[in-house]
Amino acid sequence: MRYVSFAVDGQASWGVLRDEGIVDLGAVMPDLRSFIAEGCPNAAELAARPVNHLLADVELSPVIPNPSKIVMAAVNYFKADDDRTKAPDYPVLFLRLAESQIGHEAPLVLPRCSSKLDFEGELAVVIGQGGRHITREEAMDHVFGYAIYNDGSVRDWQKHSHQFTPGKNFSGTGAFGPWLVTPDEMPAAPLTLVTRVNGVEKQRADTSQMIFDIPYLINYISTFTRLVPGDVIVTGTCTGFGSSRRPQEFLAPGDVVEVEIDGLGVLRNEVRAEEDAAFFN
Amino acid sequence: MRYVSFAVDGQASWGVLRDEGIVDLGAVMPDLRSFIAEGCPNAAELAARPVNHLLADVELSPVIPNPSKIVMAAVNYFKADDDRTKAPDYPVLFLRLAESQIGHEAPLVLPRCSSKLDFEGELAVVIGQGGRHITREEAMDHVFGYAIYNDGSVRDWQKHSHQFTPGKNFSGTGAFGPWLVTPDEMPAAPLTLVTRVNGVEKQRADTSQMIFDIPYLINYISTFTRLVPGDVIVTGTCTGFGSSRRPQEFLAPGDVVEVEIDGLGVLRNEVRAEEDAAFFN
Repeated sequence: MRYVSFAVDGQASWGVLRDEGIVDLGAVMPDLRSFIAEGCPNAAELAARPVNHLLADVELSPVIPNPSKIVMAAVNYFKADDDRTKAPDYPVLFLRLAESQIGHEAPLVLPRCSSKLDFEGELAVVIGQGGRHITREEAMDHVFGYAIYNDGSVRDWQKHSHQFTPGKNFSGTGAFGPWLVTPDEMPAAPLTLVTRVNGVEKQRADTSQMIFDIPYLINYISTFTRLVPGDVIVTGTCTGFGSSRRPQEFLAPGDVVEVEIDGLGVLRNEVRAEEDAAFFN
Repeated sequence: MRYVSFAVDGQASWGVLRDEGIVDLGAVMPDLRSFIAEGCPNAAELAARPVNHLLADVELSPVIPNPSKIVMAAVNYFKADDDRTKAPDYPVLFLRLAESQIGHEAPLVLPRCSSKLDFEGELAVVIGQGGRHITREEAMDHVFGYAIYNDGSVRDWQKHSHQFTPGKNFSGTGAFGPWLVTPDEMPAAPLTLVTRVNGVEKQRADTSQMIFDIPYLINYISTFTRLVPGDVIVTGTCTGFGSSRRPQEFLAPGDVVEVEIDGLGVLRNEVRAEEDAAFFN
Protein backbone atom coordinates (compact mmCIF):
# COMPACT_ATOMS: atom_id res chain seq x y z
CA MET A 1 0.00 0.00 0.00
CA ARG A 2 1.07 3.56 -0.64
CA TYR A 3 -0.19 6.36 1.61
CA VAL A 4 -0.07 10.11 1.07
CA SER A 5 -0.70 13.20 3.16
CA PHE A 6 -1.84 16.18 1.13
CA ALA A 7 -3.84 19.38 0.93
CA VAL A 8 -6.59 20.00 -1.55
CA ASP A 9 -8.28 23.40 -1.77
CA GLY A 10 -6.28 24.38 1.31
CA GLN A 11 -7.72 21.51 3.38
CA ALA A 12 -5.29 19.00 4.93
CA SER A 13 -6.13 15.35 4.32
CA TRP A 14 -4.54 11.97 3.69
CA GLY A 15 -5.35 8.78 1.88
CA VAL A 16 -4.28 5.78 -0.13
CA LEU A 17 -2.46 6.32 -3.41
CA ARG A 18 -3.44 4.03 -6.24
CA ASP A 19 -2.20 4.20 -9.83
CA GLU A 20 -5.47 5.92 -10.83
CA GLY A 21 -5.38 8.51 -8.04
CA ILE A 22 -5.96 9.14 -4.35
CA VAL A 23 -8.67 7.67 -2.13
CA ASP A 24 -9.31 10.55 0.30
CA LEU A 25 -9.62 9.17 3.84
CA GLY A 26 -9.73 12.49 5.69
CA ALA A 27 -13.30 11.77 6.76
CA VAL A 28 -12.31 8.39 8.26
CA MET A 29 -9.51 9.56 10.54
CA PRO A 30 -7.97 13.03 11.03
CA ASP A 31 -4.51 12.14 9.74
CA LEU A 32 -2.25 9.28 8.67
CA ARG A 33 -0.54 9.22 12.05
CA SER A 34 -3.87 8.55 13.79
CA PHE A 35 -4.69 5.80 11.28
CA ILE A 36 -1.37 4.11 12.00
CA ALA A 37 -1.89 4.49 15.75
CA GLU A 38 -5.31 2.84 15.45
CA GLY A 39 -3.80 -0.14 13.66
CA CYS A 40 -5.11 0.80 10.18
CA PRO A 41 -8.66 -0.52 10.63
CA ASN A 42 -10.28 -1.76 7.37
CA ALA A 43 -7.28 -0.68 5.31
CA ALA A 44 -7.93 -3.01 2.36
CA GLU A 45 -11.58 -2.06 2.14
CA LEU A 46 -10.80 1.68 2.36
CA ALA A 47 -8.11 1.38 -0.30
CA ALA A 48 -10.62 -0.20 -2.71
CA ARG A 49 -13.00 2.79 -2.61
CA PRO A 50 -13.28 4.95 -5.72
CA VAL A 51 -10.52 7.52 -6.08
CA ASN A 52 -11.37 11.13 -5.17
CA HIS A 53 -8.42 13.10 -6.53
CA LEU A 54 -5.84 12.83 -9.26
CA LEU A 55 -2.34 12.96 -7.82
CA ALA A 56 -1.69 16.03 -9.98
CA ASP A 57 -4.59 17.90 -8.35
CA VAL A 58 -3.30 17.82 -4.76
CA GLU A 59 -0.41 19.45 -2.96
CA LEU A 60 1.57 16.73 -1.22
CA SER A 61 2.42 17.32 2.46
CA PRO A 62 5.24 15.71 4.41
CA VAL A 63 4.34 12.00 4.58
CA ILE A 64 3.74 12.35 8.32
CA PRO A 65 3.19 16.08 8.86
CA ASN A 66 2.90 15.83 12.65
CA PRO A 67 5.13 13.06 14.02
CA SER A 68 5.71 12.99 17.74
CA LYS A 69 9.42 12.89 16.95
CA ILE A 70 11.85 12.81 14.06
CA VAL A 71 15.17 11.19 14.95
CA MET A 72 17.86 11.79 12.36
CA ALA A 73 21.12 9.92 11.85
CA ALA A 74 24.07 11.86 10.46
CA VAL A 75 26.30 10.33 7.74
CA ASN A 76 25.61 6.60 8.04
CA TYR A 77 27.07 4.90 4.96
CA PHE A 78 30.48 3.39 4.45
CA LYS A 79 32.28 4.69 1.40
CA ALA A 80 33.20 2.05 -1.17
CA ASP A 81 36.84 1.94 0.00
CA ASP A 82 36.19 2.20 3.76
CA ASP A 83 37.52 -0.47 6.09
CA ARG A 84 34.25 -1.76 7.53
CA THR A 85 35.96 -3.17 10.57
CA LYS A 86 36.63 0.43 11.66
CA ALA A 87 33.07 1.59 12.18
CA PRO A 88 32.27 4.14 14.87
CA ASP A 89 30.91 2.69 18.12
CA TYR A 90 27.60 4.55 18.04
CA PRO A 91 25.44 6.40 15.52
CA VAL A 92 25.36 10.21 15.50
CA LEU A 93 21.77 11.26 16.20
CA PHE A 94 19.97 14.56 16.33
CA LEU A 95 16.34 15.71 16.29
CA ARG A 96 14.40 17.58 13.65
CA LEU A 97 11.24 19.54 14.41
CA ALA A 98 8.06 18.62 12.55
CA GLU A 99 7.64 22.31 11.71
CA SER A 100 10.75 22.19 9.53
CA GLN A 101 9.20 19.67 7.13
CA ILE A 102 7.88 20.14 3.61
CA GLY A 103 6.27 17.81 1.10
CA HIS A 104 7.23 16.71 -2.40
CA GLU A 105 7.41 19.66 -4.84
CA ALA A 106 7.16 22.26 -2.05
CA PRO A 107 9.90 24.90 -2.06
CA LEU A 108 13.10 24.02 -0.22
CA VAL A 109 13.83 27.28 1.55
CA LEU A 110 17.22 29.02 1.44
CA PRO A 111 17.04 31.22 4.55
CA ARG A 112 18.02 34.85 4.17
CA CYS A 113 20.67 34.54 6.89
CA SER A 114 22.74 31.97 4.97
CA SER A 115 24.14 31.02 1.59
CA LYS A 116 25.12 27.49 2.68
CA LEU A 117 21.99 25.38 2.13
CA ASP A 118 22.97 21.77 1.43
CA PHE A 119 21.14 18.55 0.54
CA GLU A 120 21.32 15.03 2.03
CA GLY A 121 19.34 12.22 0.44
CA GLU A 122 18.17 9.63 2.98
CA LEU A 123 15.86 6.70 3.58
CA ALA A 124 13.12 7.42 6.15
CA VAL A 125 11.43 4.79 8.27
CA VAL A 126 7.96 5.36 9.75
CA ILE A 127 7.17 3.49 12.95
CA GLY A 128 3.98 1.47 13.21
CA GLN A 129 3.60 -0.25 16.54
CA GLY A 130 5.43 1.71 19.21
CA GLY A 131 7.56 0.44 22.02
CA ARG A 132 10.46 0.90 24.40
CA HIS A 133 13.48 -1.38 24.59
CA ILE A 134 12.71 -2.95 21.22
CA THR A 135 15.29 -5.62 20.40
CA ARG A 136 17.06 -5.79 17.05
CA GLU A 137 15.32 -9.08 16.37
CA GLU A 138 11.86 -7.52 16.85
CA ALA A 139 12.68 -4.17 15.26
CA MET A 140 11.42 -4.75 11.73
CA ASP A 141 7.99 -5.68 13.10
CA HIS A 142 7.74 -2.05 14.27
CA VAL A 143 8.26 -0.58 10.78
CA PHE A 144 5.07 0.69 9.17
CA GLY A 145 6.67 1.90 5.97
CA TYR A 146 9.33 3.82 4.12
CA ALA A 147 9.70 7.11 2.31
CA ILE A 148 12.43 9.45 1.09
CA TYR A 149 13.91 12.33 3.08
CA ASN A 150 16.06 15.26 2.03
CA ASP A 151 17.70 16.48 5.24
CA GLY A 152 18.28 20.04 4.02
CA SER A 153 21.06 21.51 6.14
CA VAL A 154 22.16 25.09 6.66
CA ARG A 155 25.85 24.35 7.11
CA ASP A 156 27.07 27.57 8.71
CA TRP A 157 24.31 27.48 11.34
CA GLN A 158 24.93 23.74 11.81
CA LYS A 159 28.50 24.64 12.77
CA HIS A 160 27.83 27.66 14.98
CA SER A 161 28.55 25.24 17.83
CA HIS A 162 29.26 21.53 18.11
CA GLN A 163 25.52 20.79 18.22
CA PHE A 164 23.80 20.52 14.82
CA THR A 165 20.33 21.65 15.99
CA PRO A 166 20.01 25.15 14.48
CA GLY A 167 21.30 24.24 11.03
CA LYS A 168 19.11 21.14 10.86
CA ASN A 169 15.86 22.84 11.84
CA PHE A 170 15.32 25.77 9.53
CA SER A 171 11.73 26.09 8.36
CA GLY A 172 11.17 24.57 4.95
CA THR A 173 14.30 22.41 4.85
CA GLY A 174 13.17 18.86 5.69
CA ALA A 175 11.61 17.34 2.58
CA PHE A 176 9.69 14.11 3.26
CA GLY A 177 7.90 12.30 0.49
CA PRO A 178 6.56 11.79 -2.00
CA TRP A 179 4.54 9.00 -0.35
CA LEU A 180 4.87 6.13 2.11
CA VAL A 181 5.26 2.56 0.88
CA THR A 182 4.51 -0.36 3.20
CA PRO A 183 7.14 -3.11 3.55
CA ASP A 184 5.13 -5.70 1.57
CA GLU A 185 5.38 -3.52 -1.56
CA MET A 186 9.09 -2.73 -1.25
CA PRO A 187 11.65 -4.29 -3.59
CA ALA A 188 14.27 -6.60 -2.11
CA ALA A 189 17.18 -4.97 -0.28
CA PRO A 190 19.68 -3.50 -0.88
CA LEU A 191 18.00 -0.33 -2.14
CA THR A 192 19.92 2.14 -4.27
CA LEU A 193 19.79 5.80 -3.19
CA VAL A 194 20.69 8.53 -5.67
CA THR A 195 20.59 12.31 -5.21
CA ARG A 196 20.69 14.66 -8.19
CA VAL A 197 20.96 18.44 -8.34
CA ASN A 198 19.68 19.95 -11.58
CA GLY A 199 19.82 16.46 -13.07
CA VAL A 200 23.47 15.85 -12.17
CA GLU A 201 24.15 12.89 -9.89
CA LYS A 202 25.74 13.93 -6.56
CA GLN A 203 25.14 11.00 -4.19
CA ARG A 204 24.90 7.28 -4.85
CA ALA A 205 24.95 4.40 -2.39
CA ASP A 206 22.98 1.33 -1.57
CA THR A 207 21.59 0.37 1.78
CA SER A 208 24.06 -2.51 2.20
CA GLN A 209 26.62 0.26 2.86
CA MET A 210 24.74 1.48 5.96
CA ILE A 211 26.93 1.58 9.07
CA PHE A 212 24.05 1.30 11.57
CA ASP A 213 21.14 -0.54 9.98
CA ILE A 214 17.44 -0.08 10.71
CA PRO A 215 17.20 -2.76 13.44
CA TYR A 216 20.22 -1.22 15.18
CA LEU A 217 18.73 2.27 15.06
CA ILE A 218 15.31 1.16 16.34
CA ASN A 219 16.91 -0.73 19.20
CA TYR A 220 19.28 2.12 20.11
CA ILE A 221 16.66 4.88 19.93
CA SER A 222 14.07 2.88 21.86
CA THR A 223 16.60 2.42 24.63
CA PHE A 224 16.30 6.08 25.54
CA THR A 225 12.80 7.00 24.35
CA ARG A 226 9.50 5.28 23.69
CA LEU A 227 8.76 5.08 19.98
CA VAL A 228 5.12 5.78 19.12
CA PRO A 229 3.15 5.22 15.91
CA GLY A 230 4.07 7.69 13.18
CA ASP A 231 7.51 8.46 14.61
CA VAL A 232 10.09 9.00 11.91
CA ILE A 233 13.65 7.69 11.88
CA VAL A 234 15.75 9.14 9.08
CA THR A 235 18.62 6.77 8.54
CA GLY A 236 21.43 9.09 7.50
CA THR A 237 23.15 10.06 4.31
CA CYS A 238 26.14 8.93 2.24
CA THR A 239 29.01 10.99 0.88
CA GLY A 240 28.55 13.38 -2.02
CA PHE A 241 26.44 16.10 -0.37
CA GLY A 242 27.53 19.61 -1.28
CA SER A 243 29.80 20.43 1.65
CA SER A 244 31.65 17.09 1.24
CA ARG A 245 32.69 18.05 -2.31
CA ARG A 246 35.86 19.91 -3.31
CA PRO A 247 35.18 22.67 -4.06
CA GLN A 248 32.10 22.77 -1.82
CA GLU A 249 28.76 23.22 -3.57
CA PHE A 250 25.72 24.86 -2.04
CA LEU A 251 22.18 25.27 -3.29
CA ALA A 252 20.90 28.47 -4.90
CA PRO A 253 17.35 29.57 -5.72
CA GLY A 254 16.09 27.68 -8.76
CA ASP A 255 18.21 24.59 -8.12
CA VAL A 256 16.22 21.35 -8.19
CA VAL A 257 17.09 18.54 -5.78
CA GLU A 258 15.85 15.04 -6.53
CA VAL A 259 16.33 12.06 -4.24
CA GLU A 260 15.46 8.65 -5.68
CA ILE A 261 15.31 5.35 -3.82
CA ASP A 262 14.30 1.99 -5.29
CA GLY A 263 10.60 1.38 -4.80
CA LEU A 264 9.95 4.80 -3.29
CA GLY A 265 9.91 7.06 -6.33
CA VAL A 266 11.58 10.45 -6.58
CA LEU A 267 11.35 13.25 -4.03
CA ARG A 268 11.74 16.55 -5.88
CA ASN A 269 12.06 20.06 -4.45
CA GLU A 270 13.11 23.33 -6.00
CA VAL A 271 15.09 25.80 -3.91
CA ARG A 272 13.46 29.13 -3.26
CA ALA A 273 14.80 32.13 -1.34
CA GLU A 274 13.07 32.76 1.98
CA GLU A 275 11.80 36.14 0.84
CA ASP A 276 9.98 34.39 -2.04
CA ALA A 277 8.48 31.68 0.17
CA ALA A 278 6.32 33.92 2.29
CA PHE A 279 4.20 31.22 3.90
CA PHE A 280 7.23 29.99 5.82
CA ASN A 281 7.85 33.30 7.56
CA MET B 1 -0.50 34.60 38.07
CA ARG B 2 0.74 31.08 38.70
CA TYR B 3 -0.40 28.24 36.47
CA VAL B 4 -0.10 24.49 37.01
CA SER B 5 -0.62 21.38 34.92
CA PHE B 6 -1.58 18.34 36.98
CA ALA B 7 -3.42 15.05 37.21
CA VAL B 8 -6.10 14.29 39.73
CA ASP B 9 -7.62 10.83 40.00
CA GLY B 10 -5.62 9.93 36.89
CA GLN B 11 -7.25 12.73 34.84
CA ALA B 12 -4.97 15.35 33.25
CA SER B 13 -5.97 18.96 33.87
CA TRP B 14 -4.53 22.42 34.45
CA GLY B 15 -5.45 25.55 36.30
CA VAL B 16 -4.50 28.61 38.29
CA LEU B 17 -2.59 28.14 41.52
CA ARG B 18 -3.63 30.41 44.39
CA ASP B 19 -2.32 30.29 47.95
CA GLU B 20 -5.48 28.41 49.00
CA GLY B 21 -5.30 25.83 46.21
CA ILE B 22 -5.93 25.17 42.53
CA VAL B 23 -8.75 26.50 40.38
CA ASP B 24 -9.31 23.61 37.94
CA LEU B 25 -9.74 24.96 34.41
CA GLY B 26 -9.72 21.65 32.57
CA ALA B 27 -13.33 22.20 31.56
CA VAL B 28 -12.53 25.62 30.05
CA MET B 29 -9.73 24.57 27.71
CA PRO B 30 -8.03 21.19 27.17
CA ASP B 31 -4.61 22.25 28.41
CA LEU B 32 -2.46 25.20 29.45
CA ARG B 33 -0.81 25.35 26.03
CA SER B 34 -4.20 25.85 24.36
CA PHE B 35 -5.10 28.56 26.88
CA ILE B 36 -1.88 30.42 26.11
CA ALA B 37 -2.45 29.99 22.37
CA GLU B 38 -5.93 31.47 22.72
CA GLY B 39 -4.53 34.52 24.49
CA CYS B 40 -5.73 33.52 27.99
CA PRO B 41 -9.36 34.68 27.63
CA ASN B 42 -10.97 35.85 30.90
CA ALA B 43 -7.88 34.92 32.90
CA ALA B 44 -8.59 37.21 35.84
CA GLU B 45 -12.19 36.08 36.13
CA LEU B 46 -11.24 32.40 35.90
CA ALA B 47 -8.53 32.82 38.52
CA ALA B 48 -11.07 34.28 40.97
CA ARG B 49 -13.28 31.19 40.90
CA PRO B 50 -13.40 29.00 44.02
CA VAL B 51 -10.53 26.57 44.34
CA ASN B 52 -11.22 22.93 43.45
CA HIS B 53 -8.16 21.10 44.76
CA LEU B 54 -5.56 21.48 47.43
CA LEU B 55 -2.08 21.54 45.94
CA ALA B 56 -1.25 18.50 48.08
CA ASP B 57 -4.08 16.51 46.49
CA VAL B 58 -2.86 16.63 42.90
CA GLU B 59 0.08 15.14 41.04
CA LEU B 60 1.89 17.95 39.27
CA SER B 61 2.71 17.41 35.58
CA PRO B 62 5.40 19.15 33.57
CA VAL B 63 4.32 22.81 33.42
CA ILE B 64 3.67 22.43 29.68
CA PRO B 65 3.30 18.67 29.16
CA ASN B 66 2.93 18.91 25.37
CA PRO B 67 4.99 21.77 23.96
CA SER B 68 5.50 21.86 20.23
CA LYS B 69 9.23 22.15 20.97
CA ILE B 70 11.71 22.35 23.80
CA VAL B 71 14.92 24.13 22.85
CA MET B 72 17.69 23.66 25.41
CA ALA B 73 20.86 25.68 25.86
CA ALA B 74 23.93 23.87 27.20
CA VAL B 75 26.11 25.52 29.86
CA ASN B 76 25.25 29.21 29.57
CA TYR B 77 26.69 30.98 32.64
CA PHE B 78 30.04 32.65 33.07
CA LYS B 79 31.93 31.42 36.10
CA ALA B 80 32.77 34.11 38.64
CA ASP B 81 36.38 34.39 37.43
CA ASP B 82 35.69 34.09 33.68
CA ASP B 83 36.83 36.82 31.33
CA ARG B 84 33.49 37.94 29.95
CA THR B 85 35.07 39.45 26.88
CA LYS B 86 35.90 35.90 25.79
CA ALA B 87 32.39 34.58 25.31
CA PRO B 88 31.68 31.97 22.63
CA ASP B 89 30.19 33.34 19.40
CA TYR B 90 26.97 31.34 19.55
CA PRO B 91 24.95 29.39 22.11
CA VAL B 92 25.06 25.58 22.12
CA LEU B 93 21.50 24.38 21.49
CA PHE B 94 19.85 20.99 21.38
CA LEU B 95 16.29 19.67 21.48
CA ARG B 96 14.49 17.71 24.16
CA LEU B 97 11.41 15.59 23.47
CA ALA B 98 8.23 16.36 25.38
CA GLU B 99 7.99 12.64 26.22
CA SER B 100 11.13 12.92 28.35
CA GLN B 101 9.50 15.38 30.77
CA ILE B 102 8.26 14.85 34.31
CA GLY B 103 6.59 17.09 36.85
CA HIS B 104 7.56 18.23 40.34
CA GLU B 105 7.92 15.31 42.77
CA ALA B 106 7.76 12.69 40.00
CA PRO B 107 10.61 10.20 39.96
CA LEU B 108 13.74 11.22 38.05
CA VAL B 109 14.60 7.99 36.26
CA LEU B 110 18.04 6.42 36.33
CA PRO B 111 17.94 4.21 33.22
CA ARG B 112 19.10 0.65 33.59
CA CYS B 113 21.67 1.09 30.81
CA SER B 114 23.64 3.75 32.69
CA SER B 115 25.06 4.76 36.04
CA LYS B 116 25.84 8.33 34.94
CA LEU B 117 22.64 10.29 35.54
CA ASP B 118 23.45 13.93 36.23
CA PHE B 119 21.49 17.08 37.16
CA GLU B 120 21.48 20.58 35.66
CA GLY B 121 19.39 23.29 37.29
CA GLU B 122 18.05 25.83 34.78
CA LEU B 123 15.59 28.64 34.22
CA ALA B 124 12.85 27.79 31.69
CA VAL B 125 10.99 30.35 29.60
CA VAL B 126 7.54 29.61 28.19
CA ILE B 127 6.61 31.43 24.99
CA GLY B 128 3.30 33.30 24.80
CA GLN B 129 2.78 34.99 21.46
CA GLY B 130 4.67 33.12 18.76
CA GLY B 131 6.69 34.50 15.91
CA ARG B 132 9.56 34.18 13.49
CA HIS B 133 12.47 36.60 13.25
CA ILE B 134 11.68 38.13 16.64
CA THR B 135 14.13 40.93 17.41
CA ARG B 136 15.97 41.17 20.72
CA GLU B 137 14.08 44.37 21.43
CA GLU B 138 10.69 42.66 21.02
CA ALA B 139 11.70 39.34 22.59
CA MET B 140 10.47 39.88 26.15
CA ASP B 141 6.96 40.64 24.83
CA HIS B 142 6.88 37.00 23.68
CA VAL B 143 7.53 35.55 27.15
CA PHE B 144 4.43 34.13 28.81
CA GLY B 145 6.14 33.00 31.98
CA TYR B 146 8.92 31.21 33.79
CA ALA B 147 9.49 27.94 35.60
CA ILE B 148 12.35 25.74 36.75
CA TYR B 149 13.93 22.93 34.74
CA ASN B 150 16.24 20.11 35.75
CA ASP B 151 17.88 18.96 32.52
CA GLY B 152 18.63 15.44 33.73
CA SER B 153 21.45 14.11 31.56
CA VAL B 154 22.71 10.58 31.01
CA ARG B 155 26.34 11.49 30.48
CA ASP B 156 27.69 8.33 28.88
CA TRP B 157 24.91 8.29 26.30
CA GLN B 158 25.33 12.05 25.82
CA LYS B 159 28.92 11.34 24.80
CA HIS B 160 28.36 8.28 22.59
CA SER B 161 28.91 10.73 19.74
CA HIS B 162 29.44 14.48 19.44
CA GLN B 163 25.66 15.04 19.39
CA PHE B 164 23.99 15.22 22.81
CA THR B 165 20.55 13.92 21.71
CA PRO B 166 20.44 10.41 23.23
CA GLY B 167 21.75 11.39 26.67
CA LYS B 168 19.41 14.38 26.86
CA ASN B 169 16.23 12.53 25.94
CA PHE B 170 15.86 9.57 28.26
CA SER B 171 12.31 9.09 29.50
CA GLY B 172 11.74 10.58 32.92
CA THR B 173 14.77 12.88 32.96
CA GLY B 174 13.45 16.36 32.15
CA ALA B 175 11.88 17.81 35.29
CA PHE B 176 9.79 20.95 34.64
CA GLY B 177 7.96 22.67 37.45
CA PRO B 178 6.66 23.14 39.96
CA TRP B 179 4.49 25.83 38.32
CA LEU B 180 4.62 28.69 35.87
CA VAL B 181 4.87 32.28 37.10
CA THR B 182 3.93 35.16 34.80
CA PRO B 183 6.43 38.03 34.41
CA ASP B 184 4.34 40.53 36.42
CA GLU B 185 4.75 38.37 39.54
CA MET B 186 8.47 37.76 39.18
CA PRO B 187 10.99 39.44 41.47
CA ALA B 188 13.47 41.87 39.94
CA ALA B 189 16.43 40.37 38.06
CA PRO B 190 19.01 39.03 38.61
CA LEU B 191 17.51 35.78 39.88
CA THR B 192 19.57 33.40 41.98
CA LEU B 193 19.60 29.74 40.90
CA VAL B 194 20.67 27.05 43.38
CA THR B 195 20.75 23.28 42.91
CA ARG B 196 21.00 20.94 45.89
CA VAL B 197 21.46 17.18 46.03
CA ASN B 198 20.32 15.62 49.30
CA GLY B 199 20.32 19.12 50.78
CA VAL B 200 23.92 19.90 49.82
CA GLU B 201 24.40 22.88 47.52
CA LYS B 202 25.99 21.91 44.18
CA GLN B 203 25.21 24.79 41.81
CA ARG B 204 24.80 28.51 42.47
CA ALA B 205 24.68 31.37 40.01
CA ASP B 206 22.55 34.35 39.23
CA THR B 207 21.04 35.24 35.91
CA SER B 208 23.37 38.23 35.44
CA GLN B 209 26.05 35.59 34.73
CA MET B 210 24.20 34.28 31.67
CA ILE B 211 26.31 34.27 28.53
CA PHE B 212 23.38 34.42 26.09
CA ASP B 213 20.43 36.14 27.72
CA ILE B 214 16.74 35.51 27.06
CA PRO B 215 16.32 38.15 24.33
CA TYR B 216 19.38 36.78 22.54
CA LEU B 217 18.04 33.21 22.69
CA ILE B 218 14.56 34.16 21.47
CA ASN B 219 16.04 36.12 18.58
CA TYR B 220 18.51 33.38 17.63
CA ILE B 221 16.03 30.50 17.85
CA SER B 222 13.30 32.36 15.97
CA THR B 223 15.77 32.95 13.14
CA PHE B 224 15.64 29.26 12.24
CA THR B 225 12.21 28.19 13.49
CA ARG B 226 8.84 29.74 14.22
CA LEU B 227 8.15 29.92 17.94
CA VAL B 228 4.57 29.04 18.86
CA PRO B 229 2.62 29.51 22.11
CA GLY B 230 3.70 27.09 24.82
CA ASP B 231 7.14 26.48 23.33
CA VAL B 232 9.80 26.07 25.99
CA ILE B 233 13.28 27.55 25.95
CA VAL B 234 15.51 26.21 28.71
CA THR B 235 18.27 28.72 29.20
CA GLY B 236 21.20 26.52 30.18
CA THR B 237 23.03 25.65 33.35
CA CYS B 238 25.98 26.90 35.37
CA THR B 239 28.98 25.00 36.67
CA GLY B 240 28.69 22.58 39.57
CA PHE B 241 26.70 19.77 37.97
CA GLY B 242 27.95 16.32 38.85
CA SER B 243 30.20 15.60 35.88
CA SER B 244 31.91 19.02 36.26
CA ARG B 245 33.05 18.11 39.80
CA ARG B 246 36.31 16.39 40.73
CA PRO B 247 35.77 13.60 41.49
CA GLN B 248 32.67 13.37 39.33
CA GLU B 249 29.38 12.77 41.13
CA PHE B 250 26.42 10.97 39.65
CA LEU B 251 22.92 10.40 40.98
CA ALA B 252 21.81 7.15 42.60
CA PRO B 253 18.34 5.88 43.47
CA GLY B 254 17.04 7.71 46.54
CA ASP B 255 19.00 10.90 45.86
CA VAL B 256 16.87 14.03 45.98
CA VAL B 257 17.57 16.89 43.55
CA GLU B 258 16.16 20.32 44.31
CA VAL B 259 16.47 23.32 42.02
CA GLU B 260 15.45 26.68 43.49
CA ILE B 261 15.10 29.97 41.62
CA ASP B 262 13.97 33.28 43.12
CA GLY B 263 10.24 33.70 42.70
CA LEU B 264 9.72 30.26 41.19
CA GLY B 265 9.84 27.99 44.22
CA VAL B 266 11.68 24.71 44.45
CA LEU B 267 11.54 21.88 41.89
CA ARG B 268 12.12 18.63 43.72
CA ASN B 269 12.58 15.12 42.31
CA GLU B 270 13.82 11.91 43.84
CA VAL B 271 15.87 9.54 41.72
CA ARG B 272 14.40 6.12 41.09
CA ALA B 273 15.84 3.21 39.14
CA GLU B 274 14.09 2.49 35.85
CA GLU B 275 13.01 -0.95 37.00
CA ASP B 276 11.16 0.70 39.91
CA ALA B 277 9.48 3.33 37.76
CA ALA B 278 7.38 0.99 35.68
CA PHE B 279 5.13 3.58 34.12
CA PHE B 280 8.06 4.95 32.15
CA ASN B 281 8.83 1.68 30.41
